Amino acid sequence: MIDGSDDAGKGSLDSPLRTDLTPIVEAVDAADAVAFVAVGDRFDDDLRYLTRFSGPDRAYALVVVPGADAADRAVLCAPPQFREQAEREFVSGARTRDGNGGDGADGFHDGVAREVRTERTTDHAGERAAAVVRDLFGDEGEEGGQKEGEREDEENERGREDDEHTLVVPPSIPHDAAVYLDRADNALASTDAVERARSRKTDAEIDRLRRVQRAAVAGMARAETVLAESEVVDGETESPHLRWEGSPLTTERLRRAVNATLAARGVRDAGDTAIGAGRSAADRNFVGDDPIRPGETVLIDVSPRGPDGYRGDLTRAFVVEGDGGWERRAYLAVESAREAALAEIEAGVPAKTVHGETAAELAAYGFDPNAEEGEAGFTHGAGHGVGVSLHESPSLSGAGELRPGHVVAVEPGVYDPNVGGIRLEDLVVVTEEGYEVLAEYPFGIVPVERE
Amino acid sequence: MIDGSDDAGKGSLDSPLRTDLTPIVEAVDAADAVAFVAVGDRFDDDLRYLTRFSGPDRAYALVVVPGADAADRAVLCAPPQFREQAEREFVSGARTRDGNGGDGADGFHDGVAREVRTERTTDHAGERAAAVVRDLFGDEGEEGGQKEGEREDEENERGREDDEHTLVVPPSIPHDAAVYLDRADNALASTDAVERARSRKTDAEIDRLRRVQRAAVAGMARAETVLAESEVVDGETESPHLRWEGSPLTTERLRRAVNATLAARGVRDAGDTAIGAGRSAADRNFVGDDPIRPGETVLIDVSPRGPDGYRGDLTRAFVVEGDGGWERRAYLAVESAREAALAEIEAGVPAKTVHGETAAELAAYGFDPNAEEGEAGFTHGAGHGVGVSLHESPSLSGAGELRPGHVVAVEPGVYDPNVGGIRLEDLVVVTEEGYEVLAEYPFGIVPVERE
Repeated sequence: MIDGSDDAGKGSLDSPLRTDLTPIVEAVDAADAVAFVAVGDRFDDDLRYLTRFSGPDRAYALVVVPGADAADRAVLCAPPQFREQAEREFVSGARTRDGNGGDGADGFHDGVAREVRTERTTDHAGERAAAVVRDLFGDEGEEGGQKEGEREDEENERGREDDEHTLVVPPSIPHDAAVYLDRADNALASTDAVERARSRKTDAEIDRLRRVQRAAVAGMARAETVLAESEVVDGETESPHLRWEGSPLTTERLRRAVNATLAARGVRDAGDTAIGAGRSAADRNFVGDDPIRPGETVLIDVSPRGPDGYRGDLTRAFVVEGDGGWERRAYLAVESAREAALAEIEAGVPAKTVHGETAAELAAYGFDPNAEEGEAGFTHGAGHGVGVSLHESPSLSGAGELRPGHVVAVEPGVYDPNVGGIRLEDLVVVTEEGYEVLAEYPFGIVPVERE
Repeated sequence: MIDGSDDAGKGSLDSPLRTDLTPIVEAVDAADAVAFVAVGDRFDDDLRYLTRFSGPDRAYALVVVPGADAADRAVLCAPPQFREQAEREFVSGARTRDGNGGDGADGFHDGVAREVRTERTTDHAGERAAAVVRDLFGDEGEEGGQKEGEREDEENERGREDDEHTLVVPPSIPHDAAVYLDRADNALASTDAVERARSRKTDAEIDRLRRVQRAAVAGMARAETVLAESEVVDGETESPHLRWEGSPLTTERLRRAVNATLAARGVRDAGDTAIGAGRSAADRNFVGDDPIRPGETVLIDVSPRGPDGYRGDLTRAFVVEGDGGWERRAYLAVESAREAALAEIEAGVPAKTVHGETAAELAAYGFDPNAEEGEAGFTHGAGHGVGVSLHESPSLSGAGELRPGHVVAVEPGVYDPNVGGIRLEDLVVVTEEGYEVLAEYPFGIVPVERE
């Protein structure tokens, strides 16, 4: 029943990923700029997406320069000790030393020549990026294949002033890097081209997301099994609670069991395995330690990160020995809202329709569809895009239409700060005709042994 | 023998952490500025350190405003759904709903009044920070306890121009946030006060680092045990390799075993469990999948992140059925270099002395102490500070003196790109008289069952 048999980590090691940089080249051209520059560390998801470089924990840089004769170039400035890894992941498109990568790894040729330059460790990544721009398009350098006159013409056309170039950058580029680029006579213009490119997934990306979501399914199965195996202790001297493997079950113990399952499958908790019980189940990001008691909602949100950076996102809620009160009504409402949300999903539908239908269905069950944080009801949006970031475009309550290749977490939920919370979340890919659930997990408020 | 019995996650949940914001207040005063502003997400380690807020995956802001009458204030601008968590972690100084926090949690009272403000989700964190600055120190607002005349005097003194305030910011504040602050008539001045404050750990921080390092010890014990349990397959039809639990042992399988052990102890691989074998053991950040063969060096670097954000860092190297060649000589050299490095460590010693002595000892064994990346020899620095970041101040090859409370990873290592690598890394805290190893792990190139 549980579709968690696949192997997220190993699978991802087999088929390399590579990113089509054409949209970045087009954004540079559209802005009459000379280059795109991004600076960040391994936690910068834009850079992870663009380079596939799993990266160092300090700043590195990517420079993309469109070529006048279509010889577009992309230069990754990496610390020296990461050279081999950068060559492998960025240039060859492989995560392993013997992986098959290179052109066409993800079924395309974007015509961008990739290279790695090893920065001196004393340099700032922004300074290195400025030097690469100067080198590839600067006043002193000669560009290969272009005559001097042609180069000057193009410079005058692209630069705002004679000595100033325009660079396209992501909005959140580090300020110190921006200052280095500015001092090197570059004007900065921000672009949302990366965000837009990221929102529509290729088949290779969907494959990665599915693999990670299958690992999330395995983690959820572990959590549900632990709950099912637990016994209810209702002694005269202690308050009622669950007991598992000889000691009281808490949200922290349950989270560790989930995270060990994720790790054994080659994905990792990126700090987001949120498990709440009772009142903490109404706190949507709870990562603390609470006792788990019978009759209380247990809310389990599993959102691992796979070896290529892609995320899963799966939420279920359970109650051990519930009394059929609030939580039963909430579960029915959320299950019904989930169906209403999914029924809307197909290419061409305005994204916020999904939120609207979800809210309307929850309202029909008597839950406030516009509750503020801390109030009882539906307190958040119906869903969000998932990719190398856990939350990215598109938002299911935002502007724009759903498009094929959008991967979204659909997550209706209702909460009562004095009682708990019920949320059901699945990852689906938008298709022309509708959607496909990336990895199925069963429903039901009473936990069942799944392993 | 293995000091891995403690419980990193649970222990950290028991005693709350809080950061003394006095150095930040002093940095603002020293710059004649009106406030300190930081903007970043959960991956921004400066913000994690300053706020203890485990945070959202999108930008939030911290504003620290010194008060003229010593009523210093710190305002955390958080997304609404994180209000309760932010109140708990930043204001109360507790990670759990029922944790004991508040003033004196870390044994001090910094006199800074903390509050959480919930941003509207449509606002940019930089815009919110600018609004808080304006509110607390702006032209329109009234400051509590100060008469109009006094306030204007102070403004003229602190602002560069009549309408402009100076704000102290970390150098890598996101550029879009810097632009918002700039547009609100603030001049930005960068500070290294946070980096300096982070480098010297309090007793509570050292406690956290020790707990995480003990989890790293448990992870290493798991890896060593797996190697010891593996059998050497040397069949006629296949090349020699290790076999464990029925299938070939690879670096990926070994990493999963380590990471599952870390997860079960409440800490997590933050993407840095690097395991190489043979030639990939010379690649210091190898996270791919290689077969593990007899006679080859297996390099295992375990650097988990604990629930409060603090890191561990532990490296050992093993060889199954070695022939006593390169790897034996390298292991002896590195063990000896480790002793030489540790012998230098005490408060008042120039940090780079440690690197110098390490390099000299490795040279005495015939290894190139100044090898470039990709060459054979000692290719990196002797060590680095460890805290909420895996690499932070001080560097053991950088400027400055060692000071009590510095926590450093000491990591001599030698590599041969055609053979493999040996590195031994331990975490030590600098004391007045010398150092203390945070968690001991045994030495020896032949793997032994440790569990």
